[in-house]
This record gives sequence, structure tokens and C-alpha cells, in this order.
Amino acid sequence: MSVAFAPSNAAALRSALDELYANYIGCLDEERFEEWPEFFTDPCLYKIIPRINVERGLPLATWLCESRGYLHDRVVAIRKTSVYGPRYIRRFVSAIRVLRASESEIEVRANYAAYETLPDELTRVFSVGQYRDRVVSVDGQMKFAEKICIFDSELVPNSLIYPL
Amino acid sequence: MSVAFAPSNAAALRSALDELYANYIGCLDEERFEEWPEFFTDPCLYKIIPRINVERGLPLATWLCESRGYLHDRVVAIRKTSVYGPRYIRRFVSAIRVLRASESEIEVRANYAAYETLPDELTRVFSVGQYRDRVVSVDGQMKFAEKICIFDSELVPNSLIYPL
Amino acid sequence: MSVAFAPSNAAALRSALDELYANYIGCLDEERFEEWPEFFTDPCLYKIIPRINVERGLPLATWLCESRGYLHDRVVAIRKTSVYGPRYIRRFVSAIRVLRASESEIEVRANYAAYETLPDELTRVFSVGQYRDRVVSVDGQMKFAEKICIFDSELVPNSLIYPL
Repeated sequence: MSVAFAPSNAAALRSALDELYANYIGCLDEERFEEWPEFFTDPCLYKIIPRINVERGLPLATWLCESRGYLHDRVVAIRKTSVYGPRYIRRFVSAIRVLRASESEIEVRANYAAYETLPDELTRVFSVGQYRDRVVSVDGQMKFAEKICIFDSELVPNSLIYPL
Repeated sequence: MSVAFAPSNAAALRSALDELYANYIGCLDEERFEEWPEFFTDPCLYKIIPRINVERGLPLATWLCESRGYLHDRVVAIRKTSVYGPRYIRRFVSAIRVLRASESEIEVRANYAAYETLPDELTRVFSVGQYRDRVVSVDGQMKFAEKICIFDSELVPNSLIYPL
Repeated sequence: MSVAFAPSNAAALRSALDELYANYIGCLDEERFEEWPEFFTDPCLYKIIPRINVERGLPLATWLCESRGYLHDRVVAIRKTSVYGPRYIRRFVSAIRVLRASESEIEVRANYAAYETLPDELTRVFSVGQYRDRVVSVDGQMKFAEKICIFDSELVPNSLIYPL
């Protein structure tokens, strides 16, 4: 794993992160799920977990994937094994923050919002929360070594079918 | 039409696009509609269309304007001929992506969200969707040669009075 | 108060503003309220006011703080004196625009959205509106000399406990 971060140039780093998150969201919103695991290292940590559990130190996560293979399983579930009605999810990211940038990795936090639209229904807020990510550089490309999606609503969304 | 894009400098291009979309949204949110056509080339293509139509290859659009004159007609409708109750619309853009940047134009996708506030009511989600835009440089200024607003909700919003 | 803006470099300025707003939102969303007054100069102007009042020239504001001391009082109210149920607020910022950048200050407008999540409830839109800010440089750090939060809903939110 080579290293290509230039923390000395804050504007360039921020721009590269903006691009990473825009590409990530574009991939999911356009339902190109097969490309989704490529945003991660292998192994990796992808977790969706309620905020209350994080605050209370409870480990129980709604989703937990520890390799690209796990992520791929999720995609297979979406495409083949899950039974669910059609829906559109649209994601937004804001307030991307670099907590720490070393030569080998960046620790990032950002807010996400996801909206759900069911057929013949109005769009509604589906989930808002925080990304807590570790980004590393693999062959010059930014990848998520860790992506923790912490959602605010204590209710586990009843239809968490697509990734966040 | 001169050309002023520097695709080699991704950070500068991203920053210029951020500025373009912020100015566009600022113009609409502050209801400076008379300035809105100036964001476009002439001729241009401005379209608001449901996602289901795009996915099924159906051409029917909710709005279709093919020149600044058409856009101006919309403004006249807003100011003079349309009958509608007062409301505020507030727009958000996220995940701006450059799909392709040549010397003469940029293809951009981004997510938008629009919120509506009626008098004595709480703010609600009005529409979320995707912009699919072609941006060109005219006399050193970025303009939309094409702006397609694809909204997720299959319901045609019953009060699409202001542009997206 | 020293001055460190480089309006000639639009991309660097935009990046620094992105960082400022991301840090501001991160501070509030993570409920590190004690750090919140540090984002402001002293004296300062922090105001939360309905849009209708701004448009009608009415001065009445929902919140008005004119120094770090006032801001600190708000924090004390949140931590000690206010009585309210637990809730999460999550904020988003979009369309950050530089209206004017002189050597001594920047005038900025941006859109904000805030979502509220109560225990055992789904997330809902809490407030959307516009920031109208004056940013100055103090010892090389950007600070808010003025931050006006103009919210769209004519209804005063019934639970404006945390800052926007």
C-alpha cells in the first residue's frame, strides 16, 4: 500500500475527499452496487450502527462487513435474495472534516442524509447520521479502510436494503 | 465560445463548479428569477423530468425550455401570470461529480434537494433528485448548455412553480 | 486583528470556508457546545431570526447574542438550566457563497438544514434557512464576527434549544 497524501496542501486534500464522497454517493444512488465494494480495501470494516449504541458502548451493529467478500454478499442479497418493493434512495453528504491526516491514512467525519421515495409516494427522510471513516491510498486511489455509518434515529430503519 | 477549462487541475475545476452551483442556488432561493436565464447558454436545454420516465426512455418532461427566451417566459409566469400561494423553496446540492471534462465542456452530475415552507406550516421535503448538466465556458464564465433535473418522486409535484 | 485572506486565490478561500463550516457543524452536532463560542469574535453578533421578519424589516429575533459571554450563557442554559427532552440535531450546509472578500473580512451566505431525531421517533426536518455571515481572520484563524441564521418556517420552532 503506497502513500500519496499531501496533508501540507489542505485544499488539494479536501478536493480529493469531495471527489471520493461524490463518487461513492453517485455509485450508490445510481444503483451501480457491483462497483460499491471497490471503494473499500480488503480486508475492511463497514458498519451501520445506531448512535445510541455507539454512545453506550454497545457493539451491536445493524450491518457489519469485514471484507470485500462480505460487501459483495450484500450486493448479491440486493440483486437476488432479498424480497422488497421498489424504491429510490438518494444520499447527501455535508461537512466533510479531516480529523487527522498522516502520511498513511486520513481520518474523516462527515454528515450524511438519505431520502427514500416509494412508488406513488412523496419523498421522505430515510436516515441521517455521521460517517466516521478511515481513508487510505491504494495504488494512488483513495479507499475506505473503515466506514462507520452512525444513524441518529433509535428506530432501526425497517427497510435498510441498500448501503449508506 | 471560448474554452477555459483546465481539467489537469482537478481542485481548481471542482472549486469553480462549487461556486457555479452555489451561485445558481443562491439566485433561485433569493428569488432573483430575472437573473436565472443568465446561467444558461442560448440556445440551451432545461428540463425537469421524473426519474421513472428517464428509466423507461419516455420523453415526457414536466418542464422543457430550449432557449433563454423560454426560461424568461417561465419567469414572466412566476411574476405575472401564475396563480399560487406564497411559499419559500430552499435548495441544497451535494455530491457534485465531473463525469467528463474536455477542453470545450464538462459533464456534471449532482444531487439536489428542495424544501418547501408554506405560511404557518413546517418545512417539508419538496423534491430530491439528480442534476445532469453540461457546462461550457462563455467569455470565461461557466454556463449551463444543458441542465436536466430528474426528480425521484413519481408523483409530479403539485406546485412546481419555481425552477429547480 | 490581523488579516490573512487571499481573495486572489478563490479555490484556497473556498476550501478554507468549507473547513470552517464543517468544523462549526461538527462542533454542534457532536454537542461540544463549550467550544462553540470560540468560533466567534468578541464582541460578535449571533442571531436566529424568522425570514418573514427579515423581509418585513422587523427586528425581532428568536435568539440574539452580542458577545462570547452571551453565547456562553446559552451553553450554560443547555447544560444546566433548560428543561427539555433528549434529542439529536444534525446539520447540513450547502451552496456556500462568497458575496464579498476584502482584505479584512469576507461576507458569506450559505444554506443550512437541521434534522431532529427524538427517542423512538423517525428523523424529521427541523429547520432550513440561510446563514448570512461575516468572517474575519483572528491570529490566522477564521472567526464569525457575525452569524445570522434566517429560518424559512414562519412558525418559531417549538424546541430551539441547541444553536444552529
